Amino acid sequence: MKKLFLCLFLLSAVVLYGRNPKYVFLFIGDGMATPQRMIADEFSRKTGRGQLAINTMPYHATTRTSSSSSLVTDSAAAATAIACGEKTENGRVGMDHSGKRKLESVAYVAKKNGKKVGIVTSVTINHATPSGFYGHRPSRSQYYALGLDLINSGFDYFGGGGVAKNNDKKSPEYKGDIYKLAEKAGYKVVKNKKDLLALKKGCGKVLASGSTGALPYNIDRVKDVASLAEYTAKGIELLDNPNGFFMMVEGGAIDWCGHANEAAGNLYEVLAFDDAVKVALAFAGKHPGETLIVVTGDHETGGMTMGFAGTGYALYMERLANQKCSIGEFAKKVKAAKKEKKDFSFADARKMLEKDFGFKFSGNIKKDPMVLTSKEIAALEKGFKENKLHNAARIVMNGKAGIGWTSGSHTALPVLTTSKGVKAEIFTGFIDNTDIAKKLKTVL
Amino acid sequence: MKKLFLCLFLLSAVVLYGRNPKYVFLFIGDGMATPQRMIADEFSRKTGRGQLAINTMPYHATTRTSSSSSLVTDSAAAATAIACGEKTENGRVGMDHSGKRKLESVAYVAKKNGKKVGIVTSVTINHATPSGFYGHRPSRSQYYALGLDLINSGFDYFGGGGVAKNNDKKSPEYKGDIYKLAEKAGYKVVKNKKDLLALKKGCGKVLASGSTGALPYNIDRVKDVASLAEYTAKGIELLDNPNGFFMMVEGGAIDWCGHANEAAGNLYEVLAFDDAVKVALAFAGKHPGETLIVVTGDHETGGMTMGFAGTGYALYMERLANQKCSIGEFAKKVKAAKKEKKDFSFADARKMLEKDFGFKFSGNIKKDPMVLTSKEIAALEKGFKENKLHNAARIVMNGKAGIGWTSGSHTALPVLTTSKGVKAEIFTGFIDNTDIAKKLKTVL
Repeated sequence: MKKLFLCLFLLSAVVLYGRNPKYVFLFIGDGMATPQRMIADEFSRKTGRGQLAINTMPYHATTRTSSSSSLVTDSAAAATAIACGEKTENGRVGMDHSGKRKLESVAYVAKKNGKKVGIVTSVTINHATPSGFYGHRPSRSQYYALGLDLINSGFDYFGGGGVAKNNDKKSPEYKGDIYKLAEKAGYKVVKNKKDLLALKKGCGKVLASGSTGALPYNIDRVKDVASLAEYTAKGIELLDNPNGFFMMVEGGAIDWCGHANEAAGNLYEVLAFDDAVKVALAFAGKHPGETLIVVTGDHETGGMTMGFAGTGYALYMERLANQKCSIGEFAKKVKAAKKEKKDFSFADARKMLEKDFGFKFSGNIKKDPMVLTSKEIAALEKGFKENKLHNAARIVMNGKAGIGWTSGSHTALPVLTTSKGVKAEIFTGFIDNTDIAKKLKTVL
Repeated sequence: MKKLFLCLFLLSAVVLYGRNPKYVFLFIGDGMATPQRMIADEFSRKTGRGQLAINTMPYHATTRTSSSSSLVTDSAAAATAIACGEKTENGRVGMDHSGKRKLESVAYVAKKNGKKVGIVTSVTINHATPSGFYGHRPSRSQYYALGLDLINSGFDYFGGGGVAKNNDKKSPEYKGDIYKLAEKAGYKVVKNKKDLLALKKGCGKVLASGSTGALPYNIDRVKDVASLAEYTAKGIELLDNPNGFFMMVEGGAIDWCGHANEAAGNLYEVLAFDDAVKVALAFAGKHPGETLIVVTGDHETGGMTMGFAGTGYALYMERLANQKCSIGEFAKKVKAAKKEKKDFSFADARKMLEKDFGFKFSGNIKKDPMVLTSKEIAALEKGFKENKLHNAARIVMNGKAGIGWTSGSHTALPVLTTSKGVKAEIFTGFIDNTDIAKKLKTVL
């Protein structure tokens, strides 16, 4: 009797759930592990936006990120593992540990099986993570050569940041400007938001960028540059076809804010990434039973923690809402202000700190937590004197919010992989980053 | 046609998987989130013991730990949430936020449904986590009163650490020594390993402890005190009956090593906890289709990270194998040595550091990473002068291994819940710590 029911169960399961997804999305937050996901999540809850979409997905897998050369991976080895399913040495892109054997990414498998392919990122399009899906080079720093690989991939849609070192005449592989070569190879090259939004289905292969470098940080939101979500939405529009598509979308600057130990910048990048995932979720809602969405990170950056000796048993993510621009932007503003006013003093800087960080130089800290302690003011003054006010402000802000960091590098903390949709249930338990590629290859 | 298969699928699923587990294990690592699990895991791999059992379970859920009073919970509010399914204020045990309404734990639900109940911990048995399953007090510091609650619960097996403040005459509820009251209430009280191991099935209710306080740290392994795994094994033996049982097992001192920012102690506590889980897994292997094992943590402690500014893109967990005793034990040894030798010098201390931490005061660091740098030696000398050599040694050891910390308190990092066995699949996705109780109540 039990055997009969087991047969019935397996038969009906195969009929109902045996199909593979037509549309596959892989979202990668660079430098995004559970701390980054949750700090943005708690901030989002506290500021009335609710839980992040990336955290509401039904299946969770703990994902080990080590490379073949270290427990602590770099983004190139991680991208290669996630894209191709094989561990490699830190620095390699789409190549094995020796740097001699080319590896095949899920994007090529998708293409081979008749799907269209899109690669989207908020940083440069030939940076380590995106290039892991189309490139094959022993070193991630071969930007120009990776630009050539991009063109040779023949993938259908590239969107987000620009091509780094696009006209690098020092490269041994130099053949001309990557953008021009892309046009020659049949790519429609667009370089601004207006042209991006004007693209229509059937326009052919696309290489679209909103900047010569990375997209602006989300915290510095520049309206005339398309967002990661907008690049994702346009990708869906252009790629949709009867055979379906595979799209990789990277939130690349989460990592950069991690390296800089900048909490507000970091969480705003995660929010921008989450907005892009929401676009895919909305698409999946319109294509029930046809879509798989996988969200992962490539590694943790910064040893970011949700607690800090100074704040004890409390955490105040909402205080980060007082920060109005990235630390880099603030540094630029200070530089400009100094240039403009020769006797620029700490009194002038105070006004800028009040405006961009919400710090208060007087008042009762018990009534308003943004009031600075004398120790914090001293740290800011010291930063001002040493020409590092932006850095001092960053550290004071981390302390106010209760965010701790232990490194300017990556760490070995496993990342969280969440998934939703057709075959999402295969992403559960404890997996290796290489398993993501292996599992995706079975459904593509 | 699709509907027919859906009906068949659901029918067969209910027949096959609709049953509830007879045996339910809930393992709680106090202060154990993903960093603690993975640091022990990587250490275990590097030292040839392989992946931890707690990480191999097929279902993973990301578990939010906030209490009703803070994003950062204490162990009492966390235990109450996990045991009873309701958020409460930090400090409360088995009571609601107001401290007035008693909450019902999964252990009481199990008992009501005819199951036997066991509560095991490596720290004192009336500490916050275990008492969350049987106690109802506005404050976790009411140790004596919680001891009374323990007796009143009528649960079948208590094992591990002793009863804290068992004879606290200052307690308003004082009625006599808890151990004597337990005996009066029909408990067999045993206080050593020999008597524990001699207990036979049918001996009645048991209150067994290996120490007046917590069990010794695993890194200081005292052979004549039973381990957490041995208390778990004895619990299984005594509790097994046709109606099944519920057993909660806590690894309590992971948290203490977290507060102390002590990496080796921390990971050895996780290993001892993992050994206890292995006992349950072996039992489950003998009772296929009847057992559910859930492993979680109550919160993260210490802001522990798997990377540190000093070691960059590397992590050397295996170096922690050089540490031979806990920091507390080392402090005791130094104190004793000083007492014995009046002119006890840093040269004497060096020998102790060499023996217990594997530090080397000469040699080539490129050939042997345990060779100390001049900066590390200076830090140890400073520690020696300030009577804090144990603390300096701890910090040097963290640096050698690449482990960072950001707090002496708990943090808000979600914990990882893993599960295996009957109905294990209900523990997946993003859950709240209260969901653990809610889900367990549906299967008990």
